[in-house]
Amino acid sequence: MPTVGSPLSVTTGPITGSRKVFVSGDRPGLRVPMREVALTSGRSIRLYDTSGPYTEEGFEPDLRVGVPPVRDGWVADRDDTEQYSDAVDGRTARRGMPGRAVTQLAYARRGVITPEMEFVALREGMPAEYVREELARGRAVLPANVNHPETEPMIIGRNFLVKVNANIGNSVVRSDVAAEVDKLVWAIRWGADTVMDLSTGTRIHTTREWVLRNSPVPVGTVPIYQALERVGGDPAMLSWEAYRDTVVEQCEQGVDYMTVHAGVLLRYVPLTAARKTGIVSRGGSILAAWCLAHHEENFLYTHFAELCQILARYDVTVSLGDGLRPGSVYDANDEAQLAELGTLGELTSVAWEHDVQVLVEGPGHVPMHKIKHNVDLQQELCHEAPFYTLGPLTTDIAPAYDHITSAIGAAMIGMFGTAMLCYVTPKEHLGLPDRDDVKQGVIAYKIAAHAADLAKAHPRAQEWDDALSEARFEFRWEDQFNLALDPDTARAYHDETLPAAPAKTAHFCSMCGPHFCSMKITHEIRRVAAAQGVSEEEVLAAGMQQKSVEFTAHGGRIYLPVADREPAQLDG
Amino acid sequence: MPTVGSPLSVTTGPITGSRKVFVSGDRPGLRVPMREVALTSGRSIRLYDTSGPYTEEGFEPDLRVGVPPVRDGWVADRDDTEQYSDAVDGRTARRGMPGRAVTQLAYARRGVITPEMEFVALREGMPAEYVREELARGRAVLPANVNHPETEPMIIGRNFLVKVNANIGNSVVRSDVAAEVDKLVWAIRWGADTVMDLSTGTRIHTTREWVLRNSPVPVGTVPIYQALERVGGDPAMLSWEAYRDTVVEQCEQGVDYMTVHAGVLLRYVPLTAARKTGIVSRGGSILAAWCLAHHEENFLYTHFAELCQILARYDVTVSLGDGLRPGSVYDANDEAQLAELGTLGELTSVAWEHDVQVLVEGPGHVPMHKIKHNVDLQQELCHEAPFYTLGPLTTDIAPAYDHITSAIGAAMIGMFGTAMLCYVTPKEHLGLPDRDDVKQGVIAYKIAAHAADLAKAHPRAQEWDDALSEARFEFRWEDQFNLALDPDTARAYHDETLPAAPAKTAHFCSMCGPHFCSMKITHEIRRVAAAQGVSEEEVLAAGMQQKSVEFTAHGGRIYLPVADREPAQLDG
Repeated sequence: MPTVGSPLSVTTGPITGSRKVFVSGDRPGLRVPMREVALTSGRSIRLYDTSGPYTEEGFEPDLRVGVPPVRDGWVADRDDTEQYSDAVDGRTARRGMPGRAVTQLAYARRGVITPEMEFVALREGMPAEYVREELARGRAVLPANVNHPETEPMIIGRNFLVKVNANIGNSVVRSDVAAEVDKLVWAIRWGADTVMDLSTGTRIHTTREWVLRNSPVPVGTVPIYQALERVGGDPAMLSWEAYRDTVVEQCEQGVDYMTVHAGVLLRYVPLTAARKTGIVSRGGSILAAWCLAHHEENFLYTHFAELCQILARYDVTVSLGDGLRPGSVYDANDEAQLAELGTLGELTSVAWEHDVQVLVEGPGHVPMHKIKHNVDLQQELCHEAPFYTLGPLTTDIAPAYDHITSAIGAAMIGMFGTAMLCYVTPKEHLGLPDRDDVKQGVIAYKIAAHAADLAKAHPRAQEWDDALSEARFEFRWEDQFNLALDPDTARAYHDETLPAAPAKTAHFCSMCGPHFCSMKITHEIRRVAAAQGVSEEEVLAAGMQQKSVEFTAHGGRIYLPVADREPAQLDG
Repeated sequence: MPTVGSPLSVTTGPITGSRKVFVSGDRPGLRVPMREVALTSGRSIRLYDTSGPYTEEGFEPDLRVGVPPVRDGWVADRDDTEQYSDAVDGRTARRGMPGRAVTQLAYARRGVITPEMEFVALREGMPAEYVREELARGRAVLPANVNHPETEPMIIGRNFLVKVNANIGNSVVRSDVAAEVDKLVWAIRWGADTVMDLSTGTRIHTTREWVLRNSPVPVGTVPIYQALERVGGDPAMLSWEAYRDTVVEQCEQGVDYMTVHAGVLLRYVPLTAARKTGIVSRGGSILAAWCLAHHEENFLYTHFAELCQILARYDVTVSLGDGLRPGSVYDANDEAQLAELGTLGELTSVAWEHDVQVLVEGPGHVPMHKIKHNVDLQQELCHEAPFYTLGPLTTDIAPAYDHITSAIGAAMIGMFGTAMLCYVTPKEHLGLPDRDDVKQGVIAYKIAAHAADLAKAHPRAQEWDDALSEARFEFRWEDQFNLALDPDTARAYHDETLPAAPAKTAHFCSMCGPHFCSMKITHEIRRVAAAQGVSEEEVLAAGMQQKSVEFTAHGGRIYLPVADREPAQLDG
């Protein structure tokens, strides 16, 4: 690979308190990674793990080579692809044999359960046949370009765990390939299910190559950005041919899904005139400019079938971009947005005719009371194709905290059926996210996604909450930290107030101190019950006058608020 | 006042980009503070302001004296209170003359519009008569102890702006009076509408005195904490008499609202036996312990009418505590919680019979799909008394980020009709919040509250979003920062990527760089339209083939992506 500016290094090693384990199914060699948290109670819990080999004990990445191509054999074994030399630098690329759609949708429709589907089934704890069915009806996608064998298969659909995408990528203002690879690894460490490389500027191809080879999660792009560079930066100079060549280049590199703003129709552009914030999608504004300059229909719309024929040969999922999404609360759910959504529904059907997997993108900025309508309408107009939304931000007043304004909207839209949430970082509207912003964005969105999983009653979601709450109630502090979405920060915060090691086994915490701890009091009630040889229910049951008298007579050991008062020096 | 350990200092001076202005009504001397943001467009916008005199230009606080007693004259003029020497240190306190309820509820019911109501009406932009009606029917409260004349009146009710409470207070593990006053001032600077002083330990009275005298917002407490200290820390030793004396002491100091866990009935305690996390309310667990030790009904329940007679003479709002709130997703909406809620409804009626204003507290930990039921049931069972909820947290898995897990729930429960949201900081479950945690908690909750205001279509809420979005679209960066909930952080984030002063007037930002800026492209379309002497709509309208050709012929100046490419040195 070409050289990069900065020294290459990424974060490796297990997530604190967890170790990598692999779950196997029937197929030899198929191993699904999980994050296992061993608890001091003797139990353990396995959590969904997106972090790739980077969190394996002792793994030493060679970033110039990339992560192991786990899918290589599966793609080859299907014997429906051909290898050829790509146009950019003559490397070997793979594509479906002429006329062959080598997509997971095509296989699913033919009744085939691929290794990728088996992998996903184990990962989600669902039957493989159910995975196949959801893919076959287009209600889920499994983005997996034949040229990105490094992907650990994952599924995006409303009946599976809600997924999170993290955007990375440099811009003309700031560019550092190594930093983007670092962000990729950092984002998946905290739980990003996919990444989009939104690089612009002069090193788009190089950055993407490094990202793809080192990414165990699907990688998405917006090809119009590179196409625009290709024609010198002038939207009016764009053409289907320039765009097509860009798409093929990216298909050959291994991009798993591509945002295509084919729904920005000429007649919709005037609908944005009365908006507060016009067109806020980069891709949308570029295509609107093209449409107006030429007074022709969007070439992505007119050539959409041709585009699908290309994507089908690489199994690239098309992500129908919402180029006219609202950029402010004021513009939410307006005519421009909803008109485009109708066209995305039409394009969904076209893509499906070509066996191409489809995601549909959504807003943006939407106040809470208008969120549900977005999902309902999208599901109706787009025939249940998975919805993939940016936030939405539920208010415009908090730049620097838009990971929070949007986590609110993301959780809700997830609950209503959105399949994947595109994260928003604290830097949204203000600057490019750095490493810490990426983490903040991913964590906020994992919270939103998991809250949505709970609200949708995903069969395994609540295990995690229950395990953590039990640890909390039983004062297993180390377990509580290790089960946290971010064990390091949870532990660090506890250390700030009670740094001593004994505090990690204390039956109270710094919030209430030893003799105001409600959980401690509840425990004492139960403990005494056990000591007395009666059940909790008996102790607690009303009408137990006699027992009550006995307990009181037992003295100050019954309710710990007296018993375990801390030494006076703490009483500062 | 007694001495405190640390040096006393608090943050003063205007919020960046804002200045304090006062709005007057008909009544002489009544001045309602607002935060005015002057925009570079020549317009200005006035925002609700909770920060008190601390943000007035040139204000120099004397923390030993406290802030000006703005309500002093109003209380005296009503001529229905008597002055006497309090029991603790012989200072003059005020209370209603014997048998007189001097509450805003009592006045409202008699048809009287008090200065406090006028103040609130100007503050919320609502008619004073409407404020009175909402108070009279108990659907809103105006917490304003006659001994806390420093309060700038505010209202809590579902038809007004959603309010935010910030908890402060030291514990036995960490205690520093000065730090609590600093946190108070810091919390209201960022928008806290009320604060609760939840101090425990040996310096409860002193801490509260400092907080009250320096607080321009209502102050709440949980008297059972101090009552427990009074009896040596053993819940079994508590009594109505010890509690009553504590309440009177706090009424005399000026506490505006008090959490009373009168709904934790003996028969409800066994309902918590099968929970994952038992009883998680400190007050709830103390009273449960008392009930079980004595096998008697909760003395707060049996003496509730007597308590109301006291509160009515000081105009202390009772906040009916949810001692059996769920402490985990697993326990949400269970029998214990909902049984207690029914009792809180019964107690609401009792308080109202005594002209005492009522808030009803709510959970806690609740997954999203169970949130609405909480509000609906509370509004039904408690006769529309204002709901005041802690979060709720929508998942248990993210200690260190519970300001986010709970901002999601808070925004939703606010949308459904909750009147006030008790903040949760990043330290929840882990430690006592420090100054920065307080800010993080308040900001997250102001976002939730404002998102709820938008969703409820509060008549003036969207002005703020629109002003900020217009500034964003017009590249008025300084206006965008100054309108932000946190101007300092918004500006700092922008500086990180584009620190130079010219970037603050640039027509692009660091996210997309100069030639990918969607807003810039939209502007160019509009700008060219103006230059051509045609309307935006004409330019944008479909069917304008001729215009389109003309524009293209005009050359590269039309669409800025070509025209304004930045110098090559940026293209790093």
